[in-house]
Amino acid sequence: MRRSGIITLTTDFGERDPFVGVMRGVIWSRHPGARIADLTHQIAPQSVREGAFWLERAFRWFPQATVHVAVVDPGVGTSRGILAVKAEGHLFLAPDNGLLGPVLELKGAKVVRVAPSALAALGVERWSATFHGRDIFAPLAAELARGRARIRDLGDEISHDMLVPSALARAIESADGVEGAVAAIDRFGNLITNIPGEMVAQRRVPRVRVQRRELELCRTYGDAKPGAYVALVGSFDRLEIACVNGNAASGLSVGLGEPVTIASESPGDAAP
Amino acid sequence: MRRSGIITLTTDFGERDPFVGVMRGVIWSRHPGARIADLTHQIAPQSVREGAFWLERAFRWFPQATVHVAVVDPGVGTSRGILAVKAEGHLFLAPDNGLLGPVLELKGAKVVRVAPSALAALGVERWSATFHGRDIFAPLAAELARGRARIRDLGDEISHDMLVPSALARAIESADGVEGAVAAIDRFGNLITNIPGEMVAQRRVPRVRVQRRELELCRTYGDAKPGAYVALVGSFDRLEIACVNGNAASGLSVGLGEPVTIASESPGDAAP
Amino acid sequence: MRRSGIITLTTDFGERDPFVGVMRGVIWSRHPGARIADLTHQIAPQSVREGAFWLERAFRWFPQATVHVAVVDPGVGTSRGILAVKAEGHLFLAPDNGLLGPVLELKGAKVVRVAPSALAALGVERWSATFHGRDIFAPLAAELARGRARIRDLGDEISHDMLVPSALARAIESADGVEGAVAAIDRFGNLITNIPGEMVAQRRVPRVRVQRRELELCRTYGDAKPGAYVALVGSFDRLEIACVNGNAASGLSVGLGEPVTIASESPGDAAP
Repeated sequence: MRRSGIITLTTDFGERDPFVGVMRGVIWSRHPGARIADLTHQIAPQSVREGAFWLERAFRWFPQATVHVAVVDPGVGTSRGILAVKAEGHLFLAPDNGLLGPVLELKGAKVVRVAPSALAALGVERWSATFHGRDIFAPLAAELARGRARIRDLGDEISHDMLVPSALARAIESADGVEGAVAAIDRFGNLITNIPGEMVAQRRVPRVRVQRRELELCRTYGDAKPGAYVALVGSFDRLEIACVNGNAASGLSVGLGEPVTIASESPGDAAP
Repeated sequence: MRRSGIITLTTDFGERDPFVGVMRGVIWSRHPGARIADLTHQIAPQSVREGAFWLERAFRWFPQATVHVAVVDPGVGTSRGILAVKAEGHLFLAPDNGLLGPVLELKGAKVVRVAPSALAALGVERWSATFHGRDIFAPLAAELARGRARIRDLGDEISHDMLVPSALARAIESADGVEGAVAAIDRFGNLITNIPGEMVAQRRVPRVRVQRRELELCRTYGDAKPGAYVALVGSFDRLEIACVNGNAASGLSVGLGEPVTIASESPGDAAP
Repeated sequence: MRRSGIITLTTDFGERDPFVGVMRGVIWSRHPGARIADLTHQIAPQSVREGAFWLERAFRWFPQATVHVAVVDPGVGTSRGILAVKAEGHLFLAPDNGLLGPVLELKGAKVVRVAPSALAALGVERWSATFHGRDIFAPLAAELARGRARIRDLGDEISHDMLVPSALARAIESADGVEGAVAAIDRFGNLITNIPGEMVAQRRVPRVRVQRRELELCRTYGDAKPGAYVALVGSFDRLEIACVNGNAASGLSVGLGEPVTIASESPGDAAP
């Protein structure tokens, strides 16, 4: 596997404190040539689901062999495991808490639970009780990115059903339509769901529902009037709900996990 | 033209979502050696004027041949054009919406409207309706920064009067004084105007007015008492209005676009 | 001294304006290969104490010979001096306002006051009244990081008692226990004190007090119930006070500087 030398970071650490800065220091101490990209450090605190969503949606925009580190870690300091995954030619490190669920569902994904002996072999031997991002994930990522360690060196491959279940439910298709939920809320208050674009495209007259509201499906925000609530397939290929020139999350008082459905066409709608 | 390998990013995307992160991924996928600097991602949402102000004020602090990408883009997904500009030895990419106005006013600035055929030639062929920062601007910037494309390869040079007018008005000098406006508000609530330092320096006793208030002109914040409203020429060579140890924007209830004037000396003032 | 090529930045500039971005431009103009890490730009505005705390706690996570620039600078534009320090194999640049106090207390720390002639020799000859981060600190850091200048080239070594005293008091041990204070507040509202972990470890039954409250000492947040206030030695080896799943700073209405003490064991406690 060729190396990209790139490491991405996804956390709920925020930018106020030097937590992310010292992770860069640790990475560069072991791999001076690493290029480091912040995906986001503003995952809602301890929202493993939101982290799981963005990590899977974002990673493909990086070159193959990029190492993606995700630390949203309510269980830090407990006995929760650490996972290393290879999927679609990319590498991933995260706690075993459902954060890598959507990545593990990808075809051919391989996962190992990182063994203490593998950490010791890389000189990762002491860590604090509360900051594994700096003490374990950063040095591991550096060693993977520079090719000193491979996923299979870190532990034995394990079966997916031995892991904490995915933090992000998949949208469910049935004869009645699609049942999904809000998976992330962006800066503009857009409600981004777990419903893939193709589930929308397969329906001739998709009727999107959130709370008791039925929404018009648009191609872009510009297709509707200011203040209107609309549904559209966003730039990360997921159905999202927006308020044109407004904030859908606050306007509808909707949070993470809110159900969003697509109703099947009625027989009348289905007629050509 | 030599290459700097540096790309700057100026957007209203915020840091909450991984939008900027995936732009880095796209850039590094095409140009692994690119160094990328965030100018700011906190331009007030859709404030083309504020983006226009900061881009022109900030770009000269980078080496020649830096590629500056600015995406404040209310018209994304519509038929608005994309501009590529060369000015003072720097390169610029932005939507044709007035964002590059202050750069286009620089002596010798050359501008092309990016042609679909040029995008196709670089393999930029499919894009989402809502995220051209990732799908068009990032790959174009990478190709310019690594020297695979030049501005003149991207389209035919066009006359400035074919473009959307500048989003940032210039300060106007007259016999009565100077008429300007607030162009940006910084983190500390300082009101930064479009009035260049030299328009202030030319006046012997400049009297700065905002709302109905007349302000003292200082050299630094330390020259006045805490709580006082003062005017000074700031570090980006523009007249700004500050509240010493306070917040002028909230204290004066002033927003972007608020008129700020300098009155000419009265005959009495002008006497030596 | 070998060069790391790494520069860290610690400021109160925030991320809203392009201040930090242009510092990168200035650094790369002089040292194109520099790798630049943001420690934080969200030091509480003008809080020299909080900057002093984080800088000393964070720098060791970077490789030797890293150049650490800290700009929390209420006195910018006045005659306050600029310091260059070498300590534990790292280099530091900051205003002479107490920001480097904790670094200067390290064994073997050497400090010079930067001389105008040294600035001139490096071509740093004109600066604004309000943005020395860009005009003085960034070019100096670039020259140190690329090895064109050494600390001893920048000025004469001076005695520590010629400097503005440290902005961060040290915790005091006495027969009665330890007297410390809140030195920083993190994103989660945790109150991080100036009390080193070893002062806690030396006591058999440490009783931590803030306001009139006595707190339980835990190893991790997971050891106590949600809503409980606890004390623990955090990942930067300082005693901190947290509210499990809550915000201690707002819950206790405690700010920077609040006294925190550890009481000595009573004779009864000390019995084996």
